Amino acid sequence: MSHNTFGHLFRVTTWGESHGPAIGCVIDGCPPGLTFDAEALQSALDRRKPGGSRFVTQRRESDAAEVLSGVFEGVTTGHPISILIRNEDARSKDYDEIAGAFRPGHADFAWQAKYGVRDWRGGGRSSARETAARVAAGAVAQMVLGPDVRAIASVTQIGSSRIDPARFDAREISRNPFFCADAETAKGWEALLDQTRKAGSSLGAVVDLSVDGVPAGWGAPVYGKLDAELAAALMSINAAKGVEIGAGFGAAELCGEENADEIRIGEDGRPVFLSNHAGGVLGGVSTGQPLTARVAFKPTSSILTPRRSIDAGGKEVELRTKGRHDPCVGIRAVPVVEAMALCVLADAKLRHRGQMG
Amino acid sequence: MSHNTFGHLFRVTTWGESHGPAIGCVIDGCPPGLTFDAEALQSALDRRKPGGSRFVTQRRESDAAEVLSGVFEGVTTGHPISILIRNEDARSKDYDEIAGAFRPGHADFAWQAKYGVRDWRGGGRSSARETAARVAAGAVAQMVLGPDVRAIASVTQIGSSRIDPARFDAREISRNPFFCADAETAKGWEALLDQTRKAGSSLGAVVDLSVDGVPAGWGAPVYGKLDAELAAALMSINAAKGVEIGAGFGAAELCGEENADEIRIGEDGRPVFLSNHAGGVLGGVSTGQPLTARVAFKPTSSILTPRRSIDAGGKEVELRTKGRHDPCVGIRAVPVVEAMALCVLADAKLRHRGQMG
Amino acid sequence: MSHNTFGHLFRVTTWGESHGPAIGCVIDGCPPGLTFDAEALQSALDRRKPGGSRFVTQRRESDAAEVLSGVFEGVTTGHPISILIRNEDARSKDYDEIAGAFRPGHADFAWQAKYGVRDWRGGGRSSARETAARVAAGAVAQMVLGPDVRAIASVTQIGSSRIDPARFDAREISRNPFFCADAETAKGWEALLDQTRKAGSSLGAVVDLSVDGVPAGWGAPVYGKLDAELAAALMSINAAKGVEIGAGFGAAELCGEENADEIRIGEDGRPVFLSNHAGGVLGGVSTGQPLTARVAFKPTSSILTPRRSIDAGGKEVELRTKGRHDPCVGIRAVPVVEAMALCVLADAKLRHRGQMG
Amino acid sequence: MSHNTFGHLFRVTTWGESHGPAIGCVIDGCPPGLTFDAEALQSALDRRKPGGSRFVTQRRESDAAEVLSGVFEGVTTGHPISILIRNEDARSKDYDEIAGAFRPGHADFAWQAKYGVRDWRGGGRSSARETAARVAAGAVAQMVLGPDVRAIASVTQIGSSRIDPARFDAREISRNPFFCADAETAKGWEALLDQTRKAGSSLGAVVDLSVDGVPAGWGAPVYGKLDAELAAALMSINAAKGVEIGAGFGAAELCGEENADEIRIGEDGRPVFLSNHAGGVLGGVSTGQPLTARVAFKPTSSILTPRRSIDAGGKEVELRTKGRHDPCVGIRAVPVVEAMALCVLADAKLRHRGQMG
Repeated sequence: MSHNTFGHLFRVTTWGESHGPAIGCVIDGCPPGLTFDAEALQSALDRRKPGGSRFVTQRRESDAAEVLSGVFEGVTTGHPISILIRNEDARSKDYDEIAGAFRPGHADFAWQAKYGVRDWRGGGRSSARETAARVAAGAVAQMVLGPDVRAIASVTQIGSSRIDPARFDAREISRNPFFCADAETAKGWEALLDQTRKAGSSLGAVVDLSVDGVPAGWGAPVYGKLDAELAAALMSINAAKGVEIGAGFGAAELCGEENADEIRIGEDGRPVFLSNHAGGVLGGVSTGQPLTARVAFKPTSSILTPRRSIDAGGKEVELRTKGRHDPCVGIRAVPVVEAMALCVLADAKLRHRGQMG
Repeated sequence: MSHNTFGHLFRVTTWGESHGPAIGCVIDGCPPGLTFDAEALQSALDRRKPGGSRFVTQRRESDAAEVLSGVFEGVTTGHPISILIRNEDARSKDYDEIAGAFRPGHADFAWQAKYGVRDWRGGGRSSARETAARVAAGAVAQMVLGPDVRAIASVTQIGSSRIDPARFDAREISRNPFFCADAETAKGWEALLDQTRKAGSSLGAVVDLSVDGVPAGWGAPVYGKLDAELAAALMSINAAKGVEIGAGFGAAELCGEENADEIRIGEDGRPVFLSNHAGGVLGGVSTGQPLTARVAFKPTSSILTPRRSIDAGGKEVELRTKGRHDPCVGIRAVPVVEAMALCVLADAKLRHRGQMG
Repeated sequence: MSHNTFGHLFRVTTWGESHGPAIGCVIDGCPPGLTFDAEALQSALDRRKPGGSRFVTQRRESDAAEVLSGVFEGVTTGHPISILIRNEDARSKDYDEIAGAFRPGHADFAWQAKYGVRDWRGGGRSSARETAARVAAGAVAQMVLGPDVRAIASVTQIGSSRIDPARFDAREISRNPFFCADAETAKGWEALLDQTRKAGSSLGAVVDLSVDGVPAGWGAPVYGKLDAELAAALMSINAAKGVEIGAGFGAAELCGEENADEIRIGEDGRPVFLSNHAGGVLGGVSTGQPLTARVAFKPTSSILTPRRSIDAGGKEVELRTKGRHDPCVGIRAVPVVEAMALCVLADAKLRHRGQMG
Repeated sequence: MSHNTFGHLFRVTTWGESHGPAIGCVIDGCPPGLTFDAEALQSALDRRKPGGSRFVTQRRESDAAEVLSGVFEGVTTGHPISILIRNEDARSKDYDEIAGAFRPGHADFAWQAKYGVRDWRGGGRSSARETAARVAAGAVAQMVLGPDVRAIASVTQIGSSRIDPARFDAREISRNPFFCADAETAKGWEALLDQTRKAGSSLGAVVDLSVDGVPAGWGAPVYGKLDAELAAALMSINAAKGVEIGAGFGAAELCGEENADEIRIGEDGRPVFLSNHAGGVLGGVSTGQPLTARVAFKPTSSILTPRRSIDAGGKEVELRTKGRHDPCVGIRAVPVVEAMALCVLADAKLRHRGQMG
């Protein structure tokens, strides 16, 4: 079973390969009558777009979104929204050498074992280029959720260098090439990344996510828990290796008294949680607190340093991966993390009102 | 949208509340002609069963599985397998006090916000009692997978006390009440848990999982990745707050050279990976290496120490949760972690051969 | 892929075999806070129950529904509703002779080809006994839809004997053992059925369905059309061979002017359709007119007259099907037709408000 | 819940409006390694294409398929196949008059009630133009099924004029503009259609389908029955109002002895059915006999004769539908009927081997 569709009521199907003519998505289930914000869609894509700084891949793509259906006179019709993005700067020649060999850390070996055939150009369908379609879907999800639901992700760790939470300032995120909320740490990352790139190496990263404005009540026990769906959504992003909700692995070290988020009645007469170890979700259902999560990304597998591997014929080889790559794939994952969270939430919103009215 | 069904081709639907007459599951999609191992089913349930030691809840349940359909003359028929487990030792009176109040850390507040109505007896549907049905399903999944696929989970951390990986011995897991593979650490946990229980407190835990015998090729890009589905499956377990695949958050600290699992040809002429940072999955598809994951569980939310909260009427209250509870919910999660992994894999196996033949 | 689940948001999973210990269903997605009408559930089951007259099977089942979950203090909780019905009067011995042979017209041959194993007792899972679970689900669907949505089915043809539409009186349906709205025709069917039963034969039938109170707007293009889903639901009933919506096959003989249901504004200022060839659905979406459909049922395949067939070993045999059977399976299909329509509509209602709010 | 995806393992998502820039589909789940027959795809589209004779709509579309993904070096990769078809000859001006009014028999009224917004140009998403995407998917389904599975549909009735079954010759189907297997009747239809067109009217039709080469064992009880899924697939085609499997409504008039398809062992030692009232499916599973079905299509709702209706403002109006239309929409439905059957079967094939191996 192939599985290129995500979501239940707000459903996103993506398609396309890194070096094919185009990539795209079809978004089904969008409510009708929403103002379609084409500019917001393009902005979201531009934010993820490669080539923005020397710290990301130098592939040049305009990533211009063509909306082919589902919008009429500037408004969603409730029918599928098909979005097309042309591939413009594919250089398949870079990959000739590795056409028959399996790059360590990449999908190559496993996909060959599964499919017996493989579009090796730029990683084909396994390329992070696919995430542009996710970002497009996330922009539409935002239209479904409205402006009150606001997802903010940022890089909080590259390699073993972490930000100082005391310096976290969300306004900084758009001011440096690392989507980093701590200006000082971001400064230091320039040298770190330059050095990594020059060494033909790469680094892992951690992305923190917080979503404000999610009302209490979204999500669904038992196998459609909001945190379980968020975990799947985030783990499905290329290179993701870990997901935490709220206190995450730290919760394992707490005792019950510390972990329980106590509740009081605030001055406005509404419930107030005194802490948020839960990360905004209890029993799989949102509590009205910010939804918080963290995602670990492994270092980019495409590196210039030769690594030992085998080829499709079973011969041992040494491989260095040429082509244009992100030295730290976690950086450009930031808009993708936000997009996936928005897709999960748009789906949760529609599903909630489906059952509850 | 309520979501009490898990899986695509191997599909499990669970139902039932902690203090209702029974809980159970319906397993659809099981291949026909398999010898139905009723004994293995009961063993799996017995392993998860409460009341086994002083370190878990004292609720006494025989957890006897009644198989009501889908098996004929000892063999699966390919039709839905309905399994029923009676609730025998429910003491709803323990919960009278909290009928109208929201226990911090529990689903109470969020579910009330969602549903407006709540079976408060023992947590109702949000109780970990539901996991018995998952374990039953896991036992059937094991029949689908056959004996070569072998999932082994164990507790590797309680609170801040970690096992020594050098002392890991899988045979020890069944020899102590903590599902711990390090006999010496397990010894120490007795005092830790006794003390916690006496203090009316609770502790978090980490469970490590390794699955051997998964062939290369299972799983499906892009939104049906084996690791994404495993993440959802594990995060859907009560009290889970974090999931790692392979090196997990540790991968964020590696450089590309370290993280890439190099491949050689072994003496038997088959590919050998020199490490397993990937945790047995690349591009969402299994590599043939052991599938490895870790799950963080928060401390049990039901504690005797009073915590501040509110009731359904919006009044501030102090709550201590009586009833019989696990001082560390992560312990009894071990068979559940294995069961969920087996369900994911049985589904992946069927889906794989659906597309591939 | 086994497929014992029906619906998307209002989802019904059924399980159980004719001669196993029990049959049942799990209904997921029911909105919370509905008064659970246990009496209505039992009435619905009683209406379908065998043994009510000499014109149906003489198997005696109390068909008492046990509700095991999802209802608390008389109200639905939004969690899965598990309903169990014990099998009480199974006589497997009647089937000994046909254990290894394929009854013509039955699922036996095809299911053996598919599964290689078969619970032959009373047809196992292919028995119409499974429809009791559908009727239970339909009763819950009615609670979701409320009393305004009212499905009325009746037998309008047995063999080649048709009712006179001019004599159609819905009140008559419950007054004869044929669910027939034409008292005079029903009278004649007594002799027809007696004669058929004595001859060891059986007859086909047609059931007409009309559902009032469906608002305009339910259903979903393109592959979730209300009429397409209704067609699947009705065709999935045992022995169904044809489904018509509105004018059905008669529409093929109309010209465009005749077929188009013209619209005017009624005295209450609301749209009025001057005819209903469409059967209450246009473009897959309800129009607010009565939803009308017809279902053709083949004659019961279990007959006492010997028929030629083969056995599992490939030997030619002659078979007469003993056991207790309905001489016209279409009769007891009436409550099942209504139940399936109600399930489709409950699902459509929830899906509609999911997308539309 | 919007529902523009069809199938479970072989899954087709279609998108696009009649007068938008393009329509298309994404086919997910196609097995890898199949030779992608681009020529067969284009032939299939050409067969459905408008403008082929004076008996169908005069809209001129080249319907050239652009394959954007999922095929590499002439072979399917197992990843989604995205197919794009540009709209070239849309004349939205024809529809200006009816922008705010509801054409009787069309989706207009119901969709306005549902969505509150509507792309009225050429019917938007409700246009039969969408079926081009279905035909494209059907061509891919054929590649999955291989040449042994062969679907043949033909028009057997227009208005009240039926073919003579004795003259049925499948080779004739491609020799006349009506997809009619009876050359003599086809001759007569020329005058009938000319007259209908000149009268500004339209006619209904019946399409018969037979599929050879389906092995015994495909399909899945209880709610995934092959005939139930076929019924949904066929009823989802624009203007379909009835579906019969095998003997269909005729089965209601048979007695049990007549209806039961007796089985003997043929000279080759394999089972032979002596008749096929079942239409190749028993208990929802294929028997190895030809799969037979019939579909009733209502007359085209777009007619030049004025009909009474209302507009969006609730005013009574008279409408005649200009634009270019098929006088008998059933004719061009023939390739669509085949395509939908092929999609159902490709899905059934993959699902069967998913559960059975």
